[in-house]
Amino acid sequence: MQFDFMNPTKIIFGAGTLSRLGEAARAAGTRALLVTGGGSVKRNGTFERAVASLQAAGVSVTECEGVEPNPRLSTVLRGAQTARDEQCDVVIALGGGSSMDAAKAMAAMVFHEGEPWDMFFAGEKKPRLPVRALPIITVPTLAATGSEMNSGAVITNERTTQKSFVQAPVLFPKTAIVDPELTLTVPPDQTAYGICDLITHVTEGYFNGVDGTPLQDRFAESVILTAMEWGPKAVADGSDLEARTQIQWASVVALNGWVQIGTQAGFPVHMIEHTLSAHHDVAHAAGLAVVNPAWMRFAAASRPERFAQFAERVFGVRRNGGNADAAAREGIDRFEAFLRSIGCPTRLSELGIGGELIDTYAADTLRVIHNKEGKLPGRPALSRDDIVAVLRAAL
Amino acid sequence: MQFDFMNPTKIIFGAGTLSRLGEAARAAGTRALLVTGGGSVKRNGTFERAVASLQAAGVSVTECEGVEPNPRLSTVLRGAQTARDEQCDVVIALGGGSSMDAAKAMAAMVFHEGEPWDMFFAGEKKPRLPVRALPIITVPTLAATGSEMNSGAVITNERTTQKSFVQAPVLFPKTAIVDPELTLTVPPDQTAYGICDLITHVTEGYFNGVDGTPLQDRFAESVILTAMEWGPKAVADGSDLEARTQIQWASVVALNGWVQIGTQAGFPVHMIEHTLSAHHDVAHAAGLAVVNPAWMRFAAASRPERFAQFAERVFGVRRNGGNADAAAREGIDRFEAFLRSIGCPTRLSELGIGGELIDTYAADTLRVIHNKEGKLPGRPALSRDDIVAVLRAAL
Repeated sequence: MQFDFMNPTKIIFGAGTLSRLGEAARAAGTRALLVTGGGSVKRNGTFERAVASLQAAGVSVTECEGVEPNPRLSTVLRGAQTARDEQCDVVIALGGGSSMDAAKAMAAMVFHEGEPWDMFFAGEKKPRLPVRALPIITVPTLAATGSEMNSGAVITNERTTQKSFVQAPVLFPKTAIVDPELTLTVPPDQTAYGICDLITHVTEGYFNGVDGTPLQDRFAESVILTAMEWGPKAVADGSDLEARTQIQWASVVALNGWVQIGTQAGFPVHMIEHTLSAHHDVAHAAGLAVVNPAWMRFAAASRPERFAQFAERVFGVRRNGGNADAAAREGIDRFEAFLRSIGCPTRLSELGIGGELIDTYAADTLRVIHNKEGKLPGRPALSRDDIVAVLRAAL
Repeated sequence: MQFDFMNPTKIIFGAGTLSRLGEAARAAGTRALLVTGGGSVKRNGTFERAVASLQAAGVSVTECEGVEPNPRLSTVLRGAQTARDEQCDVVIALGGGSSMDAAKAMAAMVFHEGEPWDMFFAGEKKPRLPVRALPIITVPTLAATGSEMNSGAVITNERTTQKSFVQAPVLFPKTAIVDPELTLTVPPDQTAYGICDLITHVTEGYFNGVDGTPLQDRFAESVILTAMEWGPKAVADGSDLEARTQIQWASVVALNGWVQIGTQAGFPVHMIEHTLSAHHDVAHAAGLAVVNPAWMRFAAASRPERFAQFAERVFGVRRNGGNADAAAREGIDRFEAFLRSIGCPTRLSELGIGGELIDTYAADTLRVIHNKEGKLPGRPALSRDDIVAVLRAAL
């Protein structure tokens, strides 16, 4: 186990903490670019409360609304231009993962010269990672991506149909204000997708990481067990603040680095899903719900012991006569059944995606990221044929 | 669940990372105060390697050796004076919890005006917490206290026989270099004490925290299970680098805030033990091994369900007919047996401490910290009589 790690983001967590946005922003600047999807936060009053808190603290607000579900490079450029035009000195995201990722990319794009897409990982070339960004404050309105407390952002280049990511220390938010009350109005399907999203963040590290990280294994299982205990309650009754609170904390921890630390894991399920949502604009986590079980069955063939551990510790599956394969299969079946039980799709057909373009999805995924052998990093590393096999199994 | 949290310390983890000390120090300053106990790090060559790394990076070294096991205020004052005299601009701790805590307190004491003990929590008065400190770098040579990645320090005022703590954001080390190779020469008894120390850090939060922190519960159990799996291996074979690695990572996480976050827990077992080691200069974690099981039996009476959960999840104790009390007792018995199995004392008599001064210990503990009702914070809050009862049960 070898790693360097730092996460300097300050988190302010708890019901009602939105009222502290102004105080947090004022510590960073006085002219805020407020980045939103624009829809639900306006309908439910969150936007108005955020602006009131900012204004009371002496922070002026320029809005950048209309960030789409899979945020586009053109949207990032538009926001960065607005921030420059309005001389903003702090970027605030108020919304889900899309608003947060877009805001983070905007904060860096303000200072990025030359070709914008160069900032992102894409194919052979080394990205020109940002070394400077406006201070970022995140206010998630959805328990899902974990973007509020990490240094990554996923953006779609609509011109090249690539969905890729940037990750750099300057993208750590200065402050994350995580107020579970803001998630009370999230509808059941989006709630379920968020639960799938956060679980997938930890399964990626759990199944693709290096050997010899037993504490990280148990932390991953902790997140999954907590999500499985409280997630169905949040789906069943959106107004259950306690369930919302536990799910939201789990979603923060699922991708703030504490669980994956030192695992050096590839994120193959995410990479495959990114291609799907770049092509079809499906909800990211709905795509994950489809790809993850299919990927698990593929990967379990080469590493049944690890999947048997998952089955045993998460679902209490007992091995009969030491047969890891059977336990592994049962664990994956039960995981898939859990996803279905909260309302997630688990087949491509449910997303309206057929088999026609599967070869293209596989090729496009490898265009974004691959290792020296031309394979998608993970355990196992996946060839084009392997990705095709995973996706065919998900039809 | 409501909390503010930040931990900006950068951690560099892994066998061989001591060689990166120079690079880390040079990023903070050029004139280091190097704080050590002075004994083992010199005998085993660690000191020499640390100095070589620093000098190769262009960092000059002034030594402050001789930090004692329960570091004293006078030692802190001596180190701060040396740092001032030598115009040091970075403080490096190379050693166990004592060296690290002393170094952190020195880094702040350099700028602290007026009465030195005012910086620490002690009795009624509000401490004058430090707002400025020299940058701190920690290099633990023992897997135990977690001091390398948190903002606390425990110091003994030998004049008043008080052992107390300071905690402030300026005390977060800038960088923690955690190299498990440095722990390979730790003898079995100290290894066992470290395991007890790290486990006690998480049991305090687990048993004394607020309700409604299920993910934190599971994280605590994760740390305990990992320590119980790998700890005995490290005790049995000190040269087992894999066991040393896992124990050391567990010890970092046990007190860097990730597990206790939002639990708002008092640390009653630590507070009682601090009094014992202030009076008798016993090894801190040997004292914890004695106090913790006795405290658990006392606390379980008012909260059997929580202790039954501990018994079930950590030791696989099944409840017969839903009897939480019996499960709770069995869990505590098995925990105590684990401590004994790795060589920890579990009775005051093994520390050479009799019952004569128990009333004094109880009174002294409450002199350091108490709530409005004059009780030691925790679940339950402990009166003087309660503390006496805990200690009597540990005779």
